Amino acid sequence: MTVIKVALLGFGTVGEGVYSAIHSHQTQLRKLLGKEVEIVAILIRDQTKERKIDANVLVTTNFEDIINIPDLDVIFEAIVGEEPSRSYLLQAIEKGIHVVTANKEMFANHGHELIQRAQQNETKIGFEATTAGGVPIIRTIKQLLQVNRITKIQGILNGTSNFILTEMRERKLSFDKALQLAQKKGYAEADPTNDISGIDAFYKLMILSQLVINQQPNWSEVIIDGIVSITQEQIKQAEKRGQRFKHIAEITFNDHSLVASVQPIIVDSNHPLYSIEGVENAVAIEASLVGKITLQGPGAGKLATASAMIEDFVDIIQHSATKKRLEYQSI
Amino acid sequence: MTVIKVALLGFGTVGEGVYSAIHSHQTQLRKLLGKEVEIVAILIRDQTKERKIDANVLVTTNFEDIINIPDLDVIFEAIVGEEPSRSYLLQAIEKGIHVVTANKEMFANHGHELIQRAQQNETKIGFEATTAGGVPIIRTIKQLLQVNRITKIQGILNGTSNFILTEMRERKLSFDKALQLAQKKGYAEADPTNDISGIDAFYKLMILSQLVINQQPNWSEVIIDGIVSITQEQIKQAEKRGQRFKHIAEITFNDHSLVASVQPIIVDSNHPLYSIEGVENAVAIEASLVGKITLQGPGAGKLATASAMIEDFVDIIQHSATKKRLEYQSI
Repeated sequence: MTVIKVALLGFGTVGEGVYSAIHSHQTQLRKLLGKEVEIVAILIRDQTKERKIDANVLVTTNFEDIINIPDLDVIFEAIVGEEPSRSYLLQAIEKGIHVVTANKEMFANHGHELIQRAQQNETKIGFEATTAGGVPIIRTIKQLLQVNRITKIQGILNGTSNFILTEMRERKLSFDKALQLAQKKGYAEADPTNDISGIDAFYKLMILSQLVINQQPNWSEVIIDGIVSITQEQIKQAEKRGQRFKHIAEITFNDHSLVASVQPIIVDSNHPLYSIEGVENAVAIEASLVGKITLQGPGAGKLATASAMIEDFVDIIQHSATKKRLEYQSI
Repeated sequence: MTVIKVALLGFGTVGEGVYSAIHSHQTQLRKLLGKEVEIVAILIRDQTKERKIDANVLVTTNFEDIINIPDLDVIFEAIVGEEPSRSYLLQAIEKGIHVVTANKEMFANHGHELIQRAQQNETKIGFEATTAGGVPIIRTIKQLLQVNRITKIQGILNGTSNFILTEMRERKLSFDKALQLAQKKGYAEADPTNDISGIDAFYKLMILSQLVINQQPNWSEVIIDGIVSITQEQIKQAEKRGQRFKHIAEITFNDHSLVASVQPIIVDSNHPLYSIEGVENAVAIEASLVGKITLQGPGAGKLATASAMIEDFVDIIQHSATKKRLEYQSI
């Protein structure tokens, strides 16, 4: 193998980011991996859309075209929703193709299943990009867990709702006006329900829960409360007391129970998430040895999310190379 | 090898933290590494001091006693100052013993040499604990560098000076009173010169520079300015404008030059380090793909620093195990 063959599922903001980052970082990747990275195919939904894709790349609406490519090494998945993503990735894993995903809804629901299948098939799954975009929260938690017990996680995991709360406070906008501004700036979807209701942050919290203790709380027992009902007046009153509304996803890991919630919380200036503003994401982790550490950064965005996915990709290639070397040597 | 034999150099706050963390996390380490971790020896300076150390541990003032222990796997170094640490670690590396250090002055001066020697001897060096205590800044930068170009780093790398500035602002203390308080709380040494002059932060900045681009700026060209001359009045005036004094270590990586400084800077509330208070450390990294990410956490402290050292230790054992397996398989 002198070339690493990859395919992209989805060519929205994130898929396009991966495409352009692989192109712009080709030299660096070659130096790091000792091989050329070639994007051989892209799965799209709408064939009529104009896209800037090299002519030698297979652009298709049919997943079969992709899964049947010989010697495909890695699939980057950046679609939205549970299905057909889950089925696609299961097929990929069955064929020994590694997977890097940014799909939080799918991964919150089926991450455990995918990881188990991947282990059985000796393939790898990267999911850094599912949670907090470019903030390296997944690998930091994995690393901490080697010697720390994690007792609590609090995060601002949705940039859209944090942006709205920030604008309502700083510019005295109503909720509706702040949401419109978020949409105008490209921070919110045409249908922003999942962002403002807390569902999006909830998915990410469930992914973190699975990562930390290999289980999730009973979904029906998690309080999920959005930011829709917060008024200008409430925000003004809080600010008078030096406090801010933050939309916080929180999970506490006890020996016998898991308590999780996503809700607007009024925080003081000494709270680690008080100063997280605009579309930023942040995660505060409490751990047995290290104490409290906080990571902050871009929770979304084309290149930030692509960066997380390509870091996963590099890890996967470097580790699977070791595996192949071992197999070779043991022959 | 059914036991991993380790020795500690130094039994101050950090050394004691490593000792107690290894004891309290024995089960976890055994599960992770498949072996018992045994602290076989500790190098101390003052034999008359009372210490709580198990009777079967060799406690000695003579490094020869330690370097001559058969099959010693790893040395944890938590002494202060360049020498004799450098010489000790070079001897360890020559004998194929892995090294984990928390010694920033030594590592800023001799890290490059030690890493080169270690590579020649196929041993490993962990230095996460040299910079920002429990904040996983070294491994985050290493990870980012796989696909990002890092363009700038700004950090609050000294908890003592940040604590003093915070107390001067919040409690209207004079510099001297705030320093006394830091000493009373155990945050500052009896001789706090390196902390308040910026030298301590400078060492850490040089370690980061070496890590990012494998070189350091000319030390004589780095502006190093402490916090001694900052007055109550200046802090009050800044606060009236909504600004704060922060003691910031900063380095910019350009194609042709390296510009570094450690100095008090007046920052606005939108600066990523504005809200870092008390003894906390934080590092803001600007990188080509991911944008800006900030890591915050305990910059010092017994268990936080020990956590960083033990994470390095686990990485080393896991990687050297792979190496030994490979050697074994290729026989």
